[in-house]
Amino acid sequence: MPEPDAWASALQDLRDLILPGMTHWQSPRHFAHFPASSSTVGALGESLIAGINVVPFTWAASPAAAELEMVVVDWLGKALHLPASLLFAGGGGGTLLGTTCEAILCALVAARDRKLAEVGWGRIGDLVVYCSDQTHFSFRKAARIAGIQRGHCREIPTSLEDMFALSPEALEAAMQTDVDAGLVPLFLCATVGTTQTTAVDPLRGLCAVAATHGLWVHVDAAYAGSALVCPEFSHVVDGVEAVDSFSMNAHKWLLVNNDCCAMWVKKPAALVAALGTEQEYILKDAAAEGHDVVDYKDWTMTLTRRFRALKMWLVLRCYSVEGLCGHIRSHVRMAAAFEDLVRDDARFEVVTDRHFALVCFRLLSTERLGGEKKANELNRRLLEKVNAATLGPYMSAANAGGIYMLRCAVGSTLTEERHVREAWKVVQEQASSLLRKMEIGKP
Amino acid sequence: MPEPDAWASALQDLRDLILPGMTHWQSPRHFAHFPASSSTVGALGESLIAGINVVPFTWAASPAAAELEMVVVDWLGKALHLPASLLFAGGGGGTLLGTTCEAILCALVAARDRKLAEVGWGRIGDLVVYCSDQTHFSFRKAARIAGIQRGHCREIPTSLEDMFALSPEALEAAMQTDVDAGLVPLFLCATVGTTQTTAVDPLRGLCAVAATHGLWVHVDAAYAGSALVCPEFSHVVDGVEAVDSFSMNAHKWLLVNNDCCAMWVKKPAALVAALGTEQEYILKDAAAEGHDVVDYKDWTMTLTRRFRALKMWLVLRCYSVEGLCGHIRSHVRMAAAFEDLVRDDARFEVVTDRHFALVCFRLLSTERLGGEKKANELNRRLLEKVNAATLGPYMSAANAGGIYMLRCAVGSTLTEERHVREAWKVVQEQASSLLRKMEIGKP
Repeated sequence: MPEPDAWASALQDLRDLILPGMTHWQSPRHFAHFPASSSTVGALGESLIAGINVVPFTWAASPAAAELEMVVVDWLGKALHLPASLLFAGGGGGTLLGTTCEAILCALVAARDRKLAEVGWGRIGDLVVYCSDQTHFSFRKAARIAGIQRGHCREIPTSLEDMFALSPEALEAAMQTDVDAGLVPLFLCATVGTTQTTAVDPLRGLCAVAATHGLWVHVDAAYAGSALVCPEFSHVVDGVEAVDSFSMNAHKWLLVNNDCCAMWVKKPAALVAALGTEQEYILKDAAAEGHDVVDYKDWTMTLTRRFRALKMWLVLRCYSVEGLCGHIRSHVRMAAAFEDLVRDDARFEVVTDRHFALVCFRLLSTERLGGEKKANELNRRLLEKVNAATLGPYMSAANAGGIYMLRCAVGSTLTEERHVREAWKVVQEQASSLLRKMEIGKP
Repeated sequence: MPEPDAWASALQDLRDLILPGMTHWQSPRHFAHFPASSSTVGALGESLIAGINVVPFTWAASPAAAELEMVVVDWLGKALHLPASLLFAGGGGGTLLGTTCEAILCALVAARDRKLAEVGWGRIGDLVVYCSDQTHFSFRKAARIAGIQRGHCREIPTSLEDMFALSPEALEAAMQTDVDAGLVPLFLCATVGTTQTTAVDPLRGLCAVAATHGLWVHVDAAYAGSALVCPEFSHVVDGVEAVDSFSMNAHKWLLVNNDCCAMWVKKPAALVAALGTEQEYILKDAAAEGHDVVDYKDWTMTLTRRFRALKMWLVLRCYSVEGLCGHIRSHVRMAAAFEDLVRDDARFEVVTDRHFALVCFRLLSTERLGGEKKANELNRRLLEKVNAATLGPYMSAANAGGIYMLRCAVGSTLTEERHVREAWKVVQEQASSLLRKMEIGKP
């Protein structure tokens, strides 16, 4: 049981005992995960949110907070070049949640209830949802939570030849097989920028196929959504007008501190039908009943909410869309520079196309290595050595299509070109050391 | 689209345009909702969390953050006098989430999957969940999300005679009816401190009855859980040793700024079985595999998480359990004083027993008022006038057992006795004015 203690002594312990045991996501040498984007304005915004400390679950519970959220999601949607049909201005609308997991779950439950209203609740066991084998496990988790049978989540295989993108033909075939078996296709979770290799599922083709079976199409752009602030990336969401819902994590790569996931839907009524609740005890505010306002509690799974709109608004105001573009482009440039360094060393290969600021690479599988299995083992050891190097970078790995590769995700706010060059130098040195040992160990 | 703008100008707009449009939850005259507890340490804790900005979804993703969370939930559980079986120290364990909605949903999905593993997935449509007609709508929402049929949430009626507490006999009868109809009782959400009137469901009796049908019993103590820091309130959770899970919102009444919901479960393995996921891409950390550590992503529905343990730890350290006790007791004292003021005015009655710091009261239903319906209308008008009074208090209403009553929830950190006295004076004045008009309007 803690004894009374002063703030200063607690801070000292934070410094001495806790911080040394952290994984430093804000380090300029953190290349392992997609970034947890941070900025002075984002952090100060969080501090203001904590100070103001309201709970904007209904309009009446904080009118300016609810209305700022409506304004900010439209601003952000426009900044990301999303179609008007997803914005309030175009009949859709958005909200700011904590995580993509929540966004996917809300969309899935809305789709489920819409479908069950059509085919009858008794067929919940016949519903089938679709994704690729690269889709984040958040989707499988959401499907389980929503009561989709465990065996009814089709993870459609992808391949290196297609750069791990989901094929519309494969989706069509999977749906047809299910329909032939008497099942009910429900939902597609497409990804723009997968976690492993930033693969981009082709929205236009997928939506065309999905429409034939009335699928709800959700786009998870958790990481890559931030890049849409730069018009040169709009092509990765070609066909997005046809989707039902879209989510991205502004806390990943858009200078908004953790947490802030933006979700937009084309038909808010479907969300409210599934997640809306009567409020028994709160004062029914006359204004709220008469006006065209949103009670955000009816859009999401939670009642308690934070005033996230404030920090998103501050970041948009203070950095501006141009500033955010520059921020994204600088990371993309650094990743491109890292990619060039990899290509310049004949011992390595860049495994997948670089779309954004993630480079997936590995030591080449030469004959000497004795096939993929040994190549994978070698690269696993390389990653271990890279991450163990003093003041070296922190990287992670992907394992797609049977190929183990190293992931270098540029995106920390503090990362500069020198950190990227130094990181590559550590990779080269550790590779040389590994390969030397193998030479010595050769029969 | 926002133009580039300076921090100072944004702050000015916050002050001039946004703050005046807020509902001021931190006002000492805010008596409407349960408090959104705030403290200097809590707000500074949030600022530190925003600055450190890590995402502790696995142990490896932030070892000290995961371990501090394990330490802090045990500290907090002990401070609240919870049974050891819910703590890590006793084979259970806890976590810090955003909201009670999440806690209930996680527990429900764990219970659902455990039950379906026993009776077969095909019986998902036969599952039935139980609560009282006073249970917060979060539970019904969680049940819907988890795929429980809409008609299968039994809201068992309560009455003023029982102070709106759920009767074990009524629960038993409801379960028996369902079993006789071939349905499968699954889950009970009991409440300690309901939203409307702070009713306390009797855990010991309910757990005894629930055990006969293998129900998972969850306790929602969102508001009243904070009061358990004072030993004199332990009686309200008499029998809590038998429950399966327990949650409370430290952000409601324990000086931890929004958001921070603590949840404890007796069998963490059930949570992990339902919500656990394989991680494909993150570096499998050798240490994480060898040690007895928690990957919190497998306990909850979300992957992205905030370092909430830090602010909870700071609040426990800096205010100490004794300090938190004093904080709770001061609000309880003020509520008792308000209750006395109500009782001293013969025109009013205190409708329900005051357990904590909420007083539910109304203008008495005299013959002159012509029955309950007119009494309700009168009290509705009274609340409107009270809330419209300049510099008056902000209160809300409950509507239970057909009785409309005003809610005065003391709990804002800044509230002092004078605010409570002033609030009562406004209520009296508005009541006098209303009653005078009625006299005039009499035939």
